[in-house]
Amino acid sequence: MKQRIITISRQFGSGGRTIGKEVASRLGIPCYDQELIEKIAEKSGFAREYIAEHGEHTTHSSWLASMFSTRDMKGNSNQDYLWNIQRKVILELAEKESCVIVGRCADYILQDVADCLTVYIHAAPEKRAKRIVEQYGERSDSPEKRLKDKDKRRISYYEFYTGLEWGAAQNYHLCLDSGVLGLDTCVDIITKLY
Amino acid sequence: MKQRIITISRQFGSGGRTIGKEVASRLGIPCYDQELIEKIAEKSGFAREYIAEHGEHTTHSSWLASMFSTRDMKGNSNQDYLWNIQRKVILELAEKESCVIVGRCADYILQDVADCLTVYIHAAPEKRAKRIVEQYGERSDSPEKRLKDKDKRRISYYEFYTGLEWGAAQNYHLCLDSGVLGLDTCVDIITKLY
Repeated sequence: MKQRIITISRQFGSGGRTIGKEVASRLGIPCYDQELIEKIAEKSGFAREYIAEHGEHTTHSSWLASMFSTRDMKGNSNQDYLWNIQRKVILELAEKESCVIVGRCADYILQDVADCLTVYIHAAPEKRAKRIVEQYGERSDSPEKRLKDKDKRRISYYEFYTGLEWGAAQNYHLCLDSGVLGLDTCVDIITKLY
Repeated sequence: MKQRIITISRQFGSGGRTIGKEVASRLGIPCYDQELIEKIAEKSGFAREYIAEHGEHTTHSSWLASMFSTRDMKGNSNQDYLWNIQRKVILELAEKESCVIVGRCADYILQDVADCLTVYIHAAPEKRAKRIVEQYGERSDSPEKRLKDKDKRRISYYEFYTGLEWGAAQNYHLCLDSGVLGLDTCVDIITKLY
């Protein structure tokens, strides 16, 4: 039987991960988010924390700075090495079973897989700021600064490895404003499309 | 009773207009597209053809060229004058009745109206090229060139008057790839969200 995949790309604090987990639970298929990190850790030997932090964000604030990061004989940085393993793990998963995959440029990596629904979840900054404080607590940096920093590093990573524009509607089959529509409605729409 | 509005922005050839008409018909509310042109013609004195062509596309291929177009004493071009009337007509409509409004930057104009669902319809260029030939017939220019030209002029118009990026998911509550999801599914999703 052909596998059917849903990829969920999401802005930080938009609730995309929660939506992905709920969609998977309703459809009775696995959701790969934290579990993806486990698989990549096994293959790569990198620590889970390193993968969580560097598997979809640029390490440095600019790509110029990243040019000076440690590289191997072929000119690959640790981040390039991690990208290649992540890519392989995602392709293998999509080959093996129907599932939901959250983040990690899976929409791009699986763009040529026939039965793949690509979803992008976003919300207004003020709603996301409120949500990250509820979910992850207060930090010394303001929620606005945390959002701005995470957005910037995620966009930079995505655009570097995919060559596509992050958040451009045309790169996804379905884009939803979770702040306006609500998380439950987003789950309903995605589940019914499957 | 509070009016409820759906705005449909769409890429040329994506079937957005057809979707808007079908949504309105199912919900039993009017759809303003051609009818909007009639209303704007009444108020502005411009010919219907002029409004259809210049009410959501730049007249010139570049804004530099448009700087040299005819302007009144206040520095407004015909296009600025048309924009202002269009804006007024759309705001009046939204005040008066529940409806679907296709195109004409209505998503931006009505962004502060509480009960407004903003939708963006897009599709891959090859699907849109096929559709415009089916809908509007062959022309001396290739469908690819017609798409490219129309896209460029529509994007330029939208970004000039709204200051927002055309097709960026975050500017809409819902973005749908009509080429992958199909027109009927798009109609279903929008109708159920209303």
